[in-house]
Amino acid sequence: MKRYIYADNAATAKLSSSALEAMLPWLQSDFANPSQPYSFSRAAKAAIKESRQVIADCIGASSDEIFFTSGGTESDNWAIKGTTAVPCSIITSEIEHHTVLNSCKAMTAGGANVKYLKPTRDGVILPDELEKNISAASLVSIMLANNEIGTIQPICELCKIAHAHGALFHTDAVQAVGHIPVDVKSLGADMLSASAHKFNGPKGVGFLYIKSGARILPLHDGGSQESGKRAGTENVAGIVGMATALKENCERMSETAKRLYGYEKLLIDNLSGLDFIRNGGENHLPGVINLSFKGASGEAILHRMDLKGICISTGSACDSVNTQVSHVVRAIGVPEEYAQGTIRISLGADNTEEDVVTIAKALKQILSR
Amino acid sequence: MKRYIYADNAATAKLSSSALEAMLPWLQSDFANPSQPYSFSRAAKAAIKESRQVIADCIGASSDEIFFTSGGTESDNWAIKGTTAVPCSIITSEIEHHTVLNSCKAMTAGGANVKYLKPTRDGVILPDELEKNISAASLVSIMLANNEIGTIQPICELCKIAHAHGALFHTDAVQAVGHIPVDVKSLGADMLSASAHKFNGPKGVGFLYIKSGARILPLHDGGSQESGKRAGTENVAGIVGMATALKENCERMSETAKRLYGYEKLLIDNLSGLDFIRNGGENHLPGVINLSFKGASGEAILHRMDLKGICISTGSACDSVNTQVSHVVRAIGVPEEYAQGTIRISLGADNTEEDVVTIAKALKQILSR
Repeated sequence: MKRYIYADNAATAKLSSSALEAMLPWLQSDFANPSQPYSFSRAAKAAIKESRQVIADCIGASSDEIFFTSGGTESDNWAIKGTTAVPCSIITSEIEHHTVLNSCKAMTAGGANVKYLKPTRDGVILPDELEKNISAASLVSIMLANNEIGTIQPICELCKIAHAHGALFHTDAVQAVGHIPVDVKSLGADMLSASAHKFNGPKGVGFLYIKSGARILPLHDGGSQESGKRAGTENVAGIVGMATALKENCERMSETAKRLYGYEKLLIDNLSGLDFIRNGGENHLPGVINLSFKGASGEAILHRMDLKGICISTGSACDSVNTQVSHVVRAIGVPEEYAQGTIRISLGADNTEEDVVTIAKALKQILSR
Repeated sequence: MKRYIYADNAATAKLSSSALEAMLPWLQSDFANPSQPYSFSRAAKAAIKESRQVIADCIGASSDEIFFTSGGTESDNWAIKGTTAVPCSIITSEIEHHTVLNSCKAMTAGGANVKYLKPTRDGVILPDELEKNISAASLVSIMLANNEIGTIQPICELCKIAHAHGALFHTDAVQAVGHIPVDVKSLGADMLSASAHKFNGPKGVGFLYIKSGARILPLHDGGSQESGKRAGTENVAGIVGMATALKENCERMSETAKRLYGYEKLLIDNLSGLDFIRNGGENHLPGVINLSFKGASGEAILHRMDLKGICISTGSACDSVNTQVSHVVRAIGVPEEYAQGTIRISLGADNTEEDVVTIAKALKQILSR
């Protein structure tokens, strides 16, 4: 029997068992430092090389465009702080993850000017909005898919506008990679951030795609690892686990997505009779269901669901000490009488139809009181 | 039978089996994001809290002074870039790890002035040297023990001088923590960097000790993890593995050190007849043996040792693409006819007397040709 029904996959997803299995040799007998020149280190070096190729293949990049980091936060910080010499001008959106928002904020201390684009009610950043505001921006950073409401952005169009004005384009794809098809060539982004634990890889590892030729200074200076762009002894096991999980997720992506979109419909159908708004656009991440219940408290719903053994979220895990209405819910203009009652259910590959029915039943019990 | 005699423990040390065992639950069933407020995440949150306390106890700190990072490189970068508003003045030494040297170099781009103290022939940074050069420095960064020659620095005295002149003191203790007693209170440092994989913990995780009250800006902006000082979903398994390994190493520290100092003597005795200099001071890391052989090539020795199944190093793993004489060997003034023939043997807890005899025999064979 399950201890919990886990429906918070956007906060973190369970490490895939094949990823763990792939990691174990690098945590046991094959522990060499991959930078060393003796033969014992060759297997680790080869494993990193192979992982880099696997990841590159999953997003349509070249292997020399993949740089391993400690996760999405480092990738976002690096992209924003490494490409912009202050004073500069950055354009981002009101609904970015706190990593991007706070990295931009940190840049203002050095004199950077930051503009925040407003989303539509569906959480879309319209290309027109960017066009109107771009002027002298050196960097545009817009997420590929929102972590709270799941809305997928028109990155390709946004990117073309940025490039037409000579700006670099970064996309925080932490929530998208491994869940929807991501092809860096067709997106056109100069940089793309990803985090392994969001796609069933291990925590503490991620990557930044940097388009060949894009100029970026290191965030972590030091040794000559990662072509001199990101110093530090490689997290071999983490890198191998990340590549294994991403490949696995990409292979089952369309099948998983189809099932999760079906579960979404099932959940919504089972909530009929309750007064709620579903947030986010039509084009959204599979399994991410953001709901605002009229006159309710998202925090109270979360805790009552927890008592029933169901894990859901009120918003971003990275902002969970803050119990106010999330900046995303505010930005998309959820009506006041609904905003406080917002929860996020994020289903993953492990969830079943039975889970969904149980979640809906629990919500009905809690909200019909 | 061993595949290799591993004598490169200063590059990376094998993950302790008890550390791996302690990591596994967090890579399997207990995968929750520790930032979430539901009960499933409580175990992860508690594990992080307990690990923080274990690590704090190992170095005489309070638990709220320990901040988890992705390793020594991030810790060093954070300490140097987070405490110094450019333009500023930094004092470091010529024999620091490339992470510190290159972090300082990166700061000069913003207008920082960096002074490099010269070591003695033994690799010691004399307090008098610091006193003579300190003037208006805002940060002093001197490593606790050198990674190539093992020399332990008089941090306590250096720290007092820095503080008397109003400067913060950071020490890169990556090579020291878990190998020699480290007590932050008696050292007096404001910041201290450590990396798990150097003391038989996993790769990709480390910590920065920040003395209560020391002001430092985040290097990784974003969510509210690590008291808002270091964003990013916590690497739960890595943190637990690091704490387990450090505690284990600290418990067996004096016994291990005694054995390794004995092995050093055995090795040197077994090399009699060869023309070499042993680099580094009397007060040095247990098991780190840096030797310069007259008229030899360190690189050639390394490769011939590799053919015999023995892993040693010519210097820092982080600089292994560079086959020139290391900056440390240059700085301490090893005579030219010996400098090119420098190797580092770094013994660890797993090494045996038999390993040492085999290493000495192999070196004699290689160097008597």
